[in-house]
Amino acid sequence: MGLLEQISGPRDLDALSPAQLRQLAAEIREFLVQAVSRTGGHLGPNLGVVELTLAMHRVFESPRDTFVFDTGHQSYVHKLLTGRQDFSTLRQKDGLAGYPSRAESEHDVVENSHASTSLSWADGIARANTVRGLRDRHVVAVIGDGALTGGMAWEAINNISAAEDRRLVVVVNDNGRSYSPTIGGMAHHLDTLRTTDGYESFLSWGKRTLNRSGPPGRFAYEWLHGLKKGIKDVVAPQGMFEDLGLKYIGPVDGHDEQAVERALRQAKAFGGPVIVHAITEKGRGYSPAEQDVADRFHAIGVIHPETGLPIAPSRFGWTKVFADELVQIGRRRPDVVAITGAMLEPVGLLPFSREFPERTIDVGIAEQHAVTSAAGMAFAGLHPVVALYATFLNRAFDQVLMDVALHRAGVTFVLDRAGITGPDGPSHHGMWDLAMLRLVPGLRLAAPRDEATLREALRTAVDVDDAPTVVRYPKGSLGPDLPAVDRLDDVDVVARTGPRSDAGDAPRVLLVGVGPMVGTALEAARVLGEHGVRTTVAAPTWVLPMPSALVKLAGEADLVVTVEDGLAEGGVGALLGERLTAEGHLARMLTLGLPTTFVDHASREEIVARYRLGAADVAADALAALGSLRP
Amino acid sequence: MGLLEQISGPRDLDALSPAQLRQLAAEIREFLVQAVSRTGGHLGPNLGVVELTLAMHRVFESPRDTFVFDTGHQSYVHKLLTGRQDFSTLRQKDGLAGYPSRAESEHDVVENSHASTSLSWADGIARANTVRGLRDRHVVAVIGDGALTGGMAWEAINNISAAEDRRLVVVVNDNGRSYSPTIGGMAHHLDTLRTTDGYESFLSWGKRTLNRSGPPGRFAYEWLHGLKKGIKDVVAPQGMFEDLGLKYIGPVDGHDEQAVERALRQAKAFGGPVIVHAITEKGRGYSPAEQDVADRFHAIGVIHPETGLPIAPSRFGWTKVFADELVQIGRRRPDVVAITGAMLEPVGLLPFSREFPERTIDVGIAEQHAVTSAAGMAFAGLHPVVALYATFLNRAFDQVLMDVALHRAGVTFVLDRAGITGPDGPSHHGMWDLAMLRLVPGLRLAAPRDEATLREALRTAVDVDDAPTVVRYPKGSLGPDLPAVDRLDDVDVVARTGPRSDAGDAPRVLLVGVGPMVGTALEAARVLGEHGVRTTVAAPTWVLPMPSALVKLAGEADLVVTVEDGLAEGGVGALLGERLTAEGHLARMLTLGLPTTFVDHASREEIVARYRLGAADVAADALAALGSLRP
Repeated sequence: MGLLEQISGPRDLDALSPAQLRQLAAEIREFLVQAVSRTGGHLGPNLGVVELTLAMHRVFESPRDTFVFDTGHQSYVHKLLTGRQDFSTLRQKDGLAGYPSRAESEHDVVENSHASTSLSWADGIARANTVRGLRDRHVVAVIGDGALTGGMAWEAINNISAAEDRRLVVVVNDNGRSYSPTIGGMAHHLDTLRTTDGYESFLSWGKRTLNRSGPPGRFAYEWLHGLKKGIKDVVAPQGMFEDLGLKYIGPVDGHDEQAVERALRQAKAFGGPVIVHAITEKGRGYSPAEQDVADRFHAIGVIHPETGLPIAPSRFGWTKVFADELVQIGRRRPDVVAITGAMLEPVGLLPFSREFPERTIDVGIAEQHAVTSAAGMAFAGLHPVVALYATFLNRAFDQVLMDVALHRAGVTFVLDRAGITGPDGPSHHGMWDLAMLRLVPGLRLAAPRDEATLREALRTAVDVDDAPTVVRYPKGSLGPDLPAVDRLDDVDVVARTGPRSDAGDAPRVLLVGVGPMVGTALEAARVLGEHGVRTTVAAPTWVLPMPSALVKLAGEADLVVTVEDGLAEGGVGALLGERLTAEGHLARMLTLGLPTTFVDHASREEIVARYRLGAADVAADALAALGSLRP
Repeated sequence: MGLLEQISGPRDLDALSPAQLRQLAAEIREFLVQAVSRTGGHLGPNLGVVELTLAMHRVFESPRDTFVFDTGHQSYVHKLLTGRQDFSTLRQKDGLAGYPSRAESEHDVVENSHASTSLSWADGIARANTVRGLRDRHVVAVIGDGALTGGMAWEAINNISAAEDRRLVVVVNDNGRSYSPTIGGMAHHLDTLRTTDGYESFLSWGKRTLNRSGPPGRFAYEWLHGLKKGIKDVVAPQGMFEDLGLKYIGPVDGHDEQAVERALRQAKAFGGPVIVHAITEKGRGYSPAEQDVADRFHAIGVIHPETGLPIAPSRFGWTKVFADELVQIGRRRPDVVAITGAMLEPVGLLPFSREFPERTIDVGIAEQHAVTSAAGMAFAGLHPVVALYATFLNRAFDQVLMDVALHRAGVTFVLDRAGITGPDGPSHHGMWDLAMLRLVPGLRLAAPRDEATLREALRTAVDVDDAPTVVRYPKGSLGPDLPAVDRLDDVDVVARTGPRSDAGDAPRVLLVGVGPMVGTALEAARVLGEHGVRTTVAAPTWVLPMPSALVKLAGEADLVVTVEDGLAEGGVGALLGERLTAEGHLARMLTLGLPTTFVDHASREEIVARYRLGAADVAADALAALGSLRP
């Protein structure tokens, strides 16, 4: 029996010797590689925080002390140490979440897996502890250097540094990477700090000698700190954080569990906000990950644990088509530049960046800056293409509205993973984009249904120079092209089923498919046709602004059914309904999509089934609605 | 004839002597005090940037070089120097905008007056200049120390500091204030820099001696810079910016035009991104402003130019009611804390902060942090009340969604200036809140119509501990209470007009007023009643989630008319329509509100009239719709 199996909670770590902790760390790495290669999930980040998490649980007392993990995808080790060692259902329906989950454990706090939020959470919790007089509780936030490029983290640091009495420990988990290597001045500064090994060796001698934690710890720390001040220009130019008024401990080797423990005990004893700077390696201890230059096995599908090679083929066909088309556009249009928020490869910008490095911009995890700097580039004569996951554009709604749209800037947004994404859970579904973006004046949005319409939409989008354009597509697989059988102005009709249109009083249904739901609509139309319903399937690629041809088509139907992979209420179908009402049509409508609720992790197929968005359910609902129409 | 009248464009400044520039500065101040006290507008910020703006226009060549003003309310001097000296229509319909306006001048670029965006705009423009090979164009961004507390600004700095070859000058206009004194570690750091007068005197001797700009300027700068490095720990600990890799010049006295010019010429000659740190005084040269501790006459209504006292009484009755009720809640509830984003007084938190200073939190201009730290406080046992202008919540949509709502945190948002605000222009209208917030699962929103419902809504909101609650109200004046005549579940009916309900076949209209539009609905109902229409006026205080009683009432009407002071498409009326449709009611509906467009500056009354949201227009539209219903 290994050590890991004997750990049922954090306090079981207390009695372990340094040698046992090293053995436990090795067991945890072995467990992660085996488990995650079976289910898929975030591997690299968790391999990097094994010792760090062990040390945190030894020095602090979760849940009395609060742990906040930024983005949460590095919480697997934390799960293993807090009673969750069955990883067989990781990221599956009703199984272990891929992120912290309050439903799973009292040790979990923040479920949002958008980056850069942890310091604000921690500041709020620590402040509440202060207001409530709970002076002996600590809050520990773990944030990556990548997440420090996000503006929210800075807003929090500015607040934390002003709060001298708050028991808040910020652990900077510095692996030099987001998905890709971290960019910008912040990374440069951390890099400077990182290279001061001499300083750390010197300091750890001081620590061993002087600081055995407990009440004297604070004084020892302060003595050391004074010393540090005096010598900082020689060995440790950690100016920035201290200029802001934040105490700084580090850098420490994040894979030396004892060194991390010492730093955390110092931080705990200090009694005010402290930054602990730990240097880690993403993918540590798993050689396929260590050798992967691109993203260190940030997140993986099911892989072979020995080779690290994927077992299932890549499913991201939409991304590949975008990647290819953008390169072609780039060859034709020297004014087109591509912007990513630390996700060059996941959003498909790698080929463009190889051919046009000087026209590829990684702004870090900084969606607000991505959007507004794009508005600036458009003003100054470029056409930026901002490629993001759909869920992350929510973070820049105001900038899309006030910087891009208000200024009629020709900026193209390409939203990958729009709609239902599956196992990443509530904060990764791209459910809000359609409902949110329809509120932006002048914005044009395309939801292509296949490769041909995706390529065409991209070409159209980059030709618009006086308004924001958006092209959005899902994570799911890309099926065959679904050609139009007819076209009314700018709206494709992809099928007509049921009796011929002159066939008397058979009811007329208009099925509108948005983006990837066109396939669903086609299949549902086949079923409706078989039931004697005259069905037209409209597949508008550009759904914002609402095409007038679609309103006209809808006005001629007895029943209009819209199917979209976003919020049903407030979405594109709802907008069509509003236009119909405004024109005095009182057509019966079904606006199908997701309810206004948070959607738990499960496979895309399971979620589609749960919310009755499969073709059989769509057809059944349409038939039921038709039934209620009949006298 | 004064000097100011002779300035028709920036180049007219070139020939002026230092003495003439001082005279011009004095004339500009006199002009601003006289003009702005007649029309209202932003006074303090503009008095603070007179010399700075003069120096910018002398050193750089706008519009070839691009000027970006953060928040834009300090662009009045810039307007005066670029051919706009008629301030008689400032902030009035079809008159001079209170912010930069591309329609007014080729010297204006950024119209968005939300804070902290300027560095992203500047980075984008400078990057585009680089990509396009326009190496001799400079971009100058002017940002206040207050706006530096916003996360976006940090995202931009992180990017700018990595771009060694970009000709970008960041002027930090440091007056130590946002509306209120600037908070946090950043302010502390600037404060340290600010107190190094000895260093500046030393440096300016060096500048005068060595650096006469032009090609040798760069070398002189670098020599000085090396010197600066060597002595920085003695006189100028400007570590933070330099740690990030950004060159730093300063601090300079922002009211010494010649000193600012010297600093800007150095910065211009440097050829890479530079920060110029200018110390200014908000309200400089106008003693009522200088003596005003609260906000230095940040923005004023019409005032007497000698005394600085308002001529019209304060119109912000809603804010005062909130301010008072929150104090009462605070006395009863020790767990209630108040959070503001640098706007303690404008949002009405001053009384609460005086009574409960330890429970009042100013996070800086940092809406994202305000929202997420509130989620943290709620987790740890407090009930935070986050008080913002409605338009600024757009900046934290993702945090409301993913930190507050997903975690079912009991956080109350109080949105002042919701709806049409008037003279501040497109980026200050609170038009998006209803349509945006209805997309947030579980969120409850109240739009009170009068003092009584505002107080009641606040009390209800702070009692909800498992979901976000929102109370929103407008900038406009607060009229008398509008009591209910009837109540169906949770929906107030405030009037019934026209024939009695048993009076045969008279058409039945349901008028739904949202928040301040209840008054409009009441008046429209009177008109409809006179036309023989049976009209019910519903005034639901809580509009999200959609009250089922309202859907029921609507289902019984021949015509439903909703009136809201937000987006018509996608708003609360639209949601009511969706629910009616989903229940199979095919009622005729008019959803009245603002179109999905940007609304220019004008008075609230003028905007109401333009978009047919006055009572007479509402009644006329309802009658026309009824007419079209009749066979």
